Amino acid sequence: MFKKPRVYLDYAAATPLSPAAFSAMKPWLLDSYANASAIHAEGLAARQAVEAAREQVADVVKVRPEYVTFVSGGTEANNLGLFGTVEYLKNQGRTYESMEVITTAIEHPSITEAMKELTSKGVKVLTVNVNSEGKIDRNHLQSLLAPQTVLVAFAYANSEIGTIQPVRALRRVMDEAEKSFSTKIFLLLDAAQAPLWLQCQANALQADLIAFDAGKCNGPKGVGFLVTSRRVKLAPILFGGGQESGLRPGTENVAGIVGASVAFAEAQANYKERVEKVSAVRDAGMKVLQDIVEGVVINGTVGDDRLANNINISLPGLDTEFATVVLDKHGFAVSTKSACAGAGGGESVVVKTISGDPVSATSTLRISLSPETKLVDIKRLAIVLKNYQEQMKSLTSY
Amino acid sequence: MFKKPRVYLDYAAATPLSPAAFSAMKPWLLDSYANASAIHAEGLAARQAVEAAREQVADVVKVRPEYVTFVSGGTEANNLGLFGTVEYLKNQGRTYESMEVITTAIEHPSITEAMKELTSKGVKVLTVNVNSEGKIDRNHLQSLLAPQTVLVAFAYANSEIGTIQPVRALRRVMDEAEKSFSTKIFLLLDAAQAPLWLQCQANALQADLIAFDAGKCNGPKGVGFLVTSRRVKLAPILFGGGQESGLRPGTENVAGIVGASVAFAEAQANYKERVEKVSAVRDAGMKVLQDIVEGVVINGTVGDDRLANNINISLPGLDTEFATVVLDKHGFAVSTKSACAGAGGGESVVVKTISGDPVSATSTLRISLSPETKLVDIKRLAIVLKNYQEQMKSLTSY
Repeated sequence: MFKKPRVYLDYAAATPLSPAAFSAMKPWLLDSYANASAIHAEGLAARQAVEAAREQVADVVKVRPEYVTFVSGGTEANNLGLFGTVEYLKNQGRTYESMEVITTAIEHPSITEAMKELTSKGVKVLTVNVNSEGKIDRNHLQSLLAPQTVLVAFAYANSEIGTIQPVRALRRVMDEAEKSFSTKIFLLLDAAQAPLWLQCQANALQADLIAFDAGKCNGPKGVGFLVTSRRVKLAPILFGGGQESGLRPGTENVAGIVGASVAFAEAQANYKERVEKVSAVRDAGMKVLQDIVEGVVINGTVGDDRLANNINISLPGLDTEFATVVLDKHGFAVSTKSACAGAGGGESVVVKTISGDPVSATSTLRISLSPETKLVDIKRLAIVLKNYQEQMKSLTSY
Repeated sequence: MFKKPRVYLDYAAATPLSPAAFSAMKPWLLDSYANASAIHAEGLAARQAVEAAREQVADVVKVRPEYVTFVSGGTEANNLGLFGTVEYLKNQGRTYESMEVITTAIEHPSITEAMKELTSKGVKVLTVNVNSEGKIDRNHLQSLLAPQTVLVAFAYANSEIGTIQPVRALRRVMDEAEKSFSTKIFLLLDAAQAPLWLQCQANALQADLIAFDAGKCNGPKGVGFLVTSRRVKLAPILFGGGQESGLRPGTENVAGIVGASVAFAEAQANYKERVEKVSAVRDAGMKVLQDIVEGVVINGTVGDDRLANNINISLPGLDTEFATVVLDKHGFAVSTKSACAGAGGGESVVVKTISGDPVSATSTLRISLSPETKLVDIKRLAIVLKNYQEQMKSLTSY
């Protein structure tokens, strides 16, 4: 029987491992297995591989290698950036109660849940408004910044709706506050979705802490890294050996680190061409969806301020949780929201926040394109959706 | 020119990836890359792989699968066991100051450094004595156990000197204390060195928390797991998505988890034969070292209470840091102590503790055998050491 090929449209959740990354990992998986902290020849070779990977990442983001810390993924990178900064200040004598942190209501759980933990410790966490496109309200940010603000954290590009924040402009607001208060206000940028689609140079972003996840940019899962600025200091959040300059103990995952650096460099090397190609498919795809499917609401913004591979729609009144199952049966892998936000149903906090509309928030579909996605894939998906919609109409009052 | 093959004698620091583990990982590295939390077919397949891995580990240690939590390595497993237990109790209303934790002075840095962090939070950390072989003093443990004791943490087998603790006997002392105080006292067992050489069934060990590292038992680096008992409850130490039953957020490292479970099952499947074979080489090797090299002090115990693959000697008066370099040049990869304890010289805290002798502690050599190590390898190593010793003698007053 003829079996339709699968169409993977969940690139925001996971990406295939780059062949070059796998080739680079292979010797460290199969042949050279020594501990990178060991002092014999095998250990030194592993150490050199880790440091070469660090240099490769540093070279891409344009920082000195010592400002790159390898961790176990984007979640840990965000957690280290957030808790590491606060705990360092705590160790310096500041109380939790004297610190304020600002974030948005549309962040990834690795920021949102970490913020809840900070709150429980006594840190005051403030939520800056975002507009209906998911963009941070600069004036509101300005009004929230205070002498006690130590950190502002948000995603470079939102993982659900793809909205790209104007990082430099937001940083300027923070710079002004720093000047007027004579304080340091660190910027933590969750850049998990960025490497394949956005400029990631630290000097361009002017962020103090930039969190990356290798598994989201054709690297291996279980590896991430945090890029820090010269002026930020961190306390560790895990305790043990002195690996990663004392910031991240544990035997280095040499193969993973090597694969992460290769994938990240590849992702950044030609991201502009990738963006050009994929954003054209995205824009045409959004139009096709609106043309074919009834009542499509586009969540987020349009144009250059949207991740090149992100389509996020609501189909008010439709059970999109079940629609993903129907699409799956027809060969399409999509999601309703971020995989980390829980596959088990419920509304999208992101769409609820930007729309204020619970109906939109419970009928979301995130269609995240790969560089290979063709417009015809989205057209076929739209037809399946349309048929599902009509089927539901004939069965219910929808 | 003829190049001698390398002899790797640092198996306690890192092990080669098992071919079966690599085969099991390969499809998850190369073909199936979906996020295990995604709800489409690709995601469900990844989810099934993770859960099958969890069942495989659970089956080996004889617990229900929900008591296996995958993390990024042994360090994180120890940290989660320790902080997770204390933070859970804290969240239940107990103060740090009301809790006591007991450990030894010869633990791995992922325990020792975590204990320092607990101390800084206000938890009282007590150190139970070990004897000259590195075994925990039961009477002293009994005297330290108190109504406020919440946890006792030590290594099943010491990573430097290989001493195996009589876990059941120590647990019995704890059981008695629990009964007399009507409290719960959790046992955290750092079992990083155990899978290849020791019985790891949870019911046999009667530990509440057992920390494993895949990279130490022919699995991939960057993966570990914590096995918990029915009665212990943990708070997470990283915050984000609901993965690993809310205990360990972050996109699952599917390939790593699959590889870890295969390697762990292999390690445990035939550990008794492995122990029989390797301990014979170890015992003969220790004798050869004592016969050939002058002034060899065996650190730790002898016989069945020593890890089958561990030889740890001191050569008082010799700079063993440099001796490892000399051995390295002759093709032998050994270490002075644990890689995580820092390659950069300094005394072995473990040997200092058991011997009370700073001279012994600064002249250690850890020779950890692989299942393939031959006695002739150790004989050749002993001759290199002897020659180095004589060279040093002729140069200095040693």
